[in-house]
Amino acid sequence: MRLSRSFLPVLKESPSGAEIASHKLMLQAGLVRQTAAGIYAWLPLGQRVLRKVEQIVREEQDRVGQEMLMPTIQSADLWRESGRYDAYGPEMLRITDRHDREMLYGPTNEDMITALFRDDVNSYRDLPRMLYHIQWKFRDERRPRFGVMRGREFLMKDAYSFDLDEAGARLSYYRQLLAYLRTFGRMGIKAVPMQADSGPIGGKLSHEFLVLAPNGESELFYDAAVEEIDFERDGLSYDDADALEALFKEATGVYARTDETHEEDLWADVPAERQRTGRGIEVGHIFYFGDKYSKAMGLKVSGPDGDITPMMGSYGVGVSRLVGAIIEASHDDNGIVWPEAVAPWKVGIVTMRADDEATVAAAEDLYAKLKAAGIETLYDDRDERGGVKLGGMDLMGLPWQIIIGPRGLKNGVVEVKNRRTGEREELTPEAALAKLTA
Amino acid sequence: MRLSRSFLPVLKESPSGAEIASHKLMLQAGLVRQTAAGIYAWLPLGQRVLRKVEQIVREEQDRVGQEMLMPTIQSADLWRESGRYDAYGPEMLRITDRHDREMLYGPTNEDMITALFRDDVNSYRDLPRMLYHIQWKFRDERRPRFGVMRGREFLMKDAYSFDLDEAGARLSYYRQLLAYLRTFGRMGIKAVPMQADSGPIGGKLSHEFLVLAPNGESELFYDAAVEEIDFERDGLSYDDADALEALFKEATGVYARTDETHEEDLWADVPAERQRTGRGIEVGHIFYFGDKYSKAMGLKVSGPDGDITPMMGSYGVGVSRLVGAIIEASHDDNGIVWPEAVAPWKVGIVTMRADDEATVAAAEDLYAKLKAAGIETLYDDRDERGGVKLGGMDLMGLPWQIIIGPRGLKNGVVEVKNRRTGEREELTPEAALAKLTA
Repeated sequence: MRLSRSFLPVLKESPSGAEIASHKLMLQAGLVRQTAAGIYAWLPLGQRVLRKVEQIVREEQDRVGQEMLMPTIQSADLWRESGRYDAYGPEMLRITDRHDREMLYGPTNEDMITALFRDDVNSYRDLPRMLYHIQWKFRDERRPRFGVMRGREFLMKDAYSFDLDEAGARLSYYRQLLAYLRTFGRMGIKAVPMQADSGPIGGKLSHEFLVLAPNGESELFYDAAVEEIDFERDGLSYDDADALEALFKEATGVYARTDETHEEDLWADVPAERQRTGRGIEVGHIFYFGDKYSKAMGLKVSGPDGDITPMMGSYGVGVSRLVGAIIEASHDDNGIVWPEAVAPWKVGIVTMRADDEATVAAAEDLYAKLKAAGIETLYDDRDERGGVKLGGMDLMGLPWQIIIGPRGLKNGVVEVKNRRTGEREELTPEAALAKLTA
Repeated sequence: MRLSRSFLPVLKESPSGAEIASHKLMLQAGLVRQTAAGIYAWLPLGQRVLRKVEQIVREEQDRVGQEMLMPTIQSADLWRESGRYDAYGPEMLRITDRHDREMLYGPTNEDMITALFRDDVNSYRDLPRMLYHIQWKFRDERRPRFGVMRGREFLMKDAYSFDLDEAGARLSYYRQLLAYLRTFGRMGIKAVPMQADSGPIGGKLSHEFLVLAPNGESELFYDAAVEEIDFERDGLSYDDADALEALFKEATGVYARTDETHEEDLWADVPAERQRTGRGIEVGHIFYFGDKYSKAMGLKVSGPDGDITPMMGSYGVGVSRLVGAIIEASHDDNGIVWPEAVAPWKVGIVTMRADDEATVAAAEDLYAKLKAAGIETLYDDRDERGGVKLGGMDLMGLPWQIIIGPRGLKNGVVEVKNRRTGEREELTPEAALAKLTA
């Protein structure tokens, strides 16, 4: 993409009013703009990152479930059937349509998926099932803040499992736990599963996934041992029930709580030298709630010996919130530092002099070759000062910069800069190309 | 995907209450379920098709514009600024949030994009720009009907162009015209651009794209000559202004109108033997409305000789509606007949006897090899009668079926069926694989 033809507005100064780094950087680098309190438009830079995060979530969910897509607007009747319409409170955006029917903007979808499953599934042979969707949700936060981290309209992946018994449901829960660890790992962040309250979803078993970050909204208490756990299990099969259970026990067996579930007497059992406190950002939440919704909404399937009420769980990932969480976990004084898997472009090309023929020719050539090699590249071809362009690239956080100027070209080289380490290397254009397409 | 582990509910009987073929087939084949009047959940089969249609739209839009993503919920103030909040009428879903602020579920985004562009673009050097997004919209139809064809919540691609003058804006309009012809062509449907009213969007120049279909909601009057126009222009460049203008003139120069814009005196000029009437489904709509929004909302950029008010256009494609329109244009008595580009899976494998070892072994082998070759395959591995499975495959409309049974295998062959033509061919499994991976 040529920057001269893009809508990538960068603010010269850090915006006032934003309290945390990710919110400031998302505004300054032009990822989002607020269009109403807690509601954001994703400009092209932000949209590209959002789509990459979404795609990683999708690919890992496809390994354990099947995608579908439920609507944003729901009927209040559905929520009356499950019994939580009145209980949900003012965070639910309640809507009346032109025929005076009570509707709402879905904050979650347990009720709807239970009704859909009930209407189309009759036999125990059709279980287990894991269904998920990635759709916009709305929670009318009293005080939206921190940009997309606590917005009102947000993109969420929510999955729902249906099993014939508790053992099956636990296996579904363990599978999602593994899928989550893999999902966050691919994004370059470490999210720790912590025992959680179920809140308005209800249920017996629940874990939140928290990214450690000094600006996180949750206060954390954890055993330093969790920092040592390697959550990545490359070889682990989703069909290996024993290994999944062992993973669950290891990943959740060490004390790690938010202030909501913190228990002083258990905390006292953690050796003092291993007690850690800090802050974190919730990026996922999984629930096992058994027959709460299936019972309330009359979901039953016929089994070999009579009717069975499926046991359910639900599994959420805050897709849009993750964009902010990744920035909180990965930025420096100069701007965002994207992990490569979610970077809007892998490479940025900067010409230090847009009026120098050789510079422009070298940049055009590298741009064409990187594109041809399938490398996502942003080419800052504007007639701007080199320093301004370099500052913009640092701010936008692309993993690699190729800096091209007349002085280097005289010696036959360009500079390749690694955004994370700051290392710069002088390479011939051919060697730069080889390095970045390797 | 194995059907035995999927949520692909097929109805045994054609559903009552659905008036048109696409609506019936989308319910019967399990693409969607209605969750409230005019609001649908997309089950996995429908979601796959929806995503393919969306991706084709995206790829063609990426050739002329840049993607972003605006939210579904908008502030009423934005629409007051553009002056159309009160004018919009009861189709707008108006919402009051917990702080009693007036909001709405966006039916379109001219107001918001104009405000975003105004806040971040200052110089004529930053024009022209074409921005688009693909997002859910809501129009509170008085009488939603025809399934996703006239639903209330629907997925739309809407693009917006900003140019320095009318000539530039016309070029943007012509580019989108070409992008639309290519988009619909890739989906295997022919959509004819017809002169249209601008309605509440406003403006001077407007065309609708209509797919000819006996169940279409619009009445059409057209010169038979439009049927002869080849709208595909493979070699045409988006930078060739003359060729784009010539395309526009050819594509829109022949009489083709809906009942809304039909003019009897012009119609009389069409030779009687070329006069055609019929019905059609609107799948796209493009508008050039000049400075209507930029003026009302104070969007100006500084030019070399003073301020310039950008000239704008907007360009919509009904993404979810297209799924219905494609089915209207492509089905038979047995079910849906997907064009390959939008098919949920390319190949379906059916075992005629799930209890025959050789049959299952051959099916598993072909399934594994098709997957390894990257061919999207649905494998009906259920313990069901062969006839039921074949009926399901016809209904779901996958382009190719591989039918495997003990009788054929004795002779070393499987059957490969083309869903569109009904042709069946006996081939060795290796030859079937070669044919479908070619």
